Amino acid sequence: MIEVNGDRPIKVALLGCGNVGSQVARLLLESPDDLAARVGAPVQLMGIGVRHPDAERPGIDPVLFTKDSEALVRSGVDVVIEVIGGIEPAKSLLLAAFASGASVVTANKALLAAHGQELYAAAERAGVDIYFEAAVAGAIPIIRPLRESLVGDEITTVMGIVNGTTNFILDKMTTDHLSFSEALAEAQELGYAEADPTADVEGYDAAAKASILASLAFHTEIAGADVHREGITTITVEDIESARAQGFVIKLLAVATLSGDREDSVSVRVHPTMLPESHPLASVRGAYNAVFVESRNAGRLMFLGPGAGGSPTASAVMGDLVTIARNRVRGTHGPAMSTYRRYGIAPIEDARTSYYITMQVKDEPGVLARIASVFAKHEVSILAVRQTMDDEGHARLGIMTHVARDAEFTDTVSEIRTMTSAISGRIRLIRVEGR
Amino acid sequence: MIEVNGDRPIKVALLGCGNVGSQVARLLLESPDDLAARVGAPVQLMGIGVRHPDAERPGIDPVLFTKDSEALVRSGVDVVIEVIGGIEPAKSLLLAAFASGASVVTANKALLAAHGQELYAAAERAGVDIYFEAAVAGAIPIIRPLRESLVGDEITTVMGIVNGTTNFILDKMTTDHLSFSEALAEAQELGYAEADPTADVEGYDAAAKASILASLAFHTEIAGADVHREGITTITVEDIESARAQGFVIKLLAVATLSGDREDSVSVRVHPTMLPESHPLASVRGAYNAVFVESRNAGRLMFLGPGAGGSPTASAVMGDLVTIARNRVRGTHGPAMSTYRRYGIAPIEDARTSYYITMQVKDEPGVLARIASVFAKHEVSILAVRQTMDDEGHARLGIMTHVARDAEFTDTVSEIRTMTSAISGRIRLIRVEGR
Repeated sequence: MIEVNGDRPIKVALLGCGNVGSQVARLLLESPDDLAARVGAPVQLMGIGVRHPDAERPGIDPVLFTKDSEALVRSGVDVVIEVIGGIEPAKSLLLAAFASGASVVTANKALLAAHGQELYAAAERAGVDIYFEAAVAGAIPIIRPLRESLVGDEITTVMGIVNGTTNFILDKMTTDHLSFSEALAEAQELGYAEADPTADVEGYDAAAKASILASLAFHTEIAGADVHREGITTITVEDIESARAQGFVIKLLAVATLSGDREDSVSVRVHPTMLPESHPLASVRGAYNAVFVESRNAGRLMFLGPGAGGSPTASAVMGDLVTIARNRVRGTHGPAMSTYRRYGIAPIEDARTSYYITMQVKDEPGVLARIASVFAKHEVSILAVRQTMDDEGHARLGIMTHVARDAEFTDTVSEIRTMTSAISGRIRLIRVEGR
Repeated sequence: MIEVNGDRPIKVALLGCGNVGSQVARLLLESPDDLAARVGAPVQLMGIGVRHPDAERPGIDPVLFTKDSEALVRSGVDVVIEVIGGIEPAKSLLLAAFASGASVVTANKALLAAHGQELYAAAERAGVDIYFEAAVAGAIPIIRPLRESLVGDEITTVMGIVNGTTNFILDKMTTDHLSFSEALAEAQELGYAEADPTADVEGYDAAAKASILASLAFHTEIAGADVHREGITTITVEDIESARAQGFVIKLLAVATLSGDREDSVSVRVHPTMLPESHPLASVRGAYNAVFVESRNAGRLMFLGPGAGGSPTASAVMGDLVTIARNRVRGTHGPAMSTYRRYGIAPIEDARTSYYITMQVKDEPGVLARIASVFAKHEVSILAVRQTMDDEGHARLGIMTHVARDAEFTDTVSEIRTMTSAISGRIRLIRVEGR
């Protein structure tokens, strides 16, 4: 139905030419006729801003490369694609793009988590688009479904495996019984983890994505820094085995939920989580990502796919580019971000989940009764108890609770820690979702 | 970011007030402030076109109902929501809507499968929108991801469980060992199947959805009537048991794939399919739907959720309504359908899949060799063979093939049917995907 309007090409600037950028360049250059037919006008790559324009990059005309990204952005292009990552110079370049009337496609979750509201406002003032499907969960269409498909519904929970590195590591620990550091080393060898893995394994990356998903789902402003964050570095093979014995797996989850104690607050958090093996997210393997959405009317939805990688991320970027270019051809832009609500983030103390706690106990009469009475005192209901003997003949107690406030649970555990006549060694605890 | 523009409300007409329509009406009426904030203007339900305006419908002001849907559609509304179903009067009403400058949200897969191109063209001529997220897979966002998120990629396969009724029936047959007719009766009792279940169990409904998905995925025009279609009425508990013994489940799948023998043709078909238990679609239970998408760059994606029901379908309708209303507020409309390619549908003889064939054979030397030689003659490679004794002491042979053209397989089976000295009873055969 779309007829190519040959009048004026849509001019595109690409910022960054690494793993993702080189794939975006390939897709921009390899099928110009298909791209033109889908957009309704030819799409022309005007230049690629890089730090080292003279580096060898096979398959791309060297004349396209420039060190002066700012000049490229201000050269009258229609769309700026930013795949540099990090806060600066990305932020200044995007603000310059908006000031020059260009729309933006970005894959930069860290930037959006830190300065999203400023960027969205700048785009809206300029009457241009900012799209960022690639910023969360790679190629999985999740931004558009939240921003448009579910915009007539009330989302109550978004819960996802949004960091492929940690999912790969936990999967390796589960399947091959590797320790955390062995699994991390393997992830680094395979290129799934960076030399400095902090952003992934400490949950910063997942927290940035959680803030973006929560902002969209709940029509409010949530920054990455506001997200409660616990990483996976302390998870042991024993934790995983102990979860497995209960029919659970351990995943690093980003969780955003409306169902707090107060109507006007949301709980947004990233932490290792026990999930029942039957939960749709439990079977997400390796470097895959998945996002689970629960809403009042649509019910339970799940989106699954590759969470990272050059080609998948480039696919998401290209979808946004075509959407923006189509808008340009029709002389319009998409809807602005919907953040009309002013929800606060509930403190982690108010989060409501179940917990699984394991501890080594003295194998003598009355110990279980004493521990159970501490749970009762803090009004934390016990769902299941499991006592086993470990290889050294110590009694280990595993307690799964009903849903409780985090604060009550923390108080319970603090009190149990003081009971040195009943317990010995460390108390291990992990949240449980999806029961 | 969006500020409500109080100037002019977005006027909405609703056609139909059954299972879906009554939920749409509820959502239109229950949170006007949220709706206005998301759209950027108030949304006003102007009337509901129904056959029996005097029927009792609690919670909706009786003054809204009218028998004269045509007058309602032509009364200057901005958006017409059509949830009547069927070809007429829905088609004439939508054409009247476009002629009056109204955009359309429809959940009518039968209408789109039969007359989609005419409707898309009429919308484009009028410069208005037609959105139809609810037409395929209920609340699962699949239309928007195909139409926008993946529009910069090359989709190679779309494969889905898009009919909840048949999935419920097959699931019941698998889990509770019911016969087809027993499972159908239970589906009818629970309201999952109609009194006349033909559209579901014979695959017409799935074929309509397959044509819509294939048109979007491959940027071409495919009508529901062009889709090869086989239903589930002949599937027996024995077929399901025999599949299970191989580690497979049987699902009614809609399959659309580019990977035919010719570059400019697509294979679009609906048939019972054996899927390995490890395939993401295999674990889709009950009345849930799921769509699996494979593309050159994004890789393998899956979308899962409730496939039908009043509230889920209404959620999808409301997402489309908000999108269209936002476009109206900004004086624009979304992109037209992208059908710039002229792909044909490959005949079913050219479809390439694996097959599983079971037959009762004479338990005597040389029978397997004779049967295997027929496969070899037609160049159908055998992947696995399994011979068992049934309860009556008959030898049953199960053969799984490698991927082959449908035509070669049909020839093979025709020849084996003539071998009455080697086989007895019926030959059962079923396609295999996702290995």
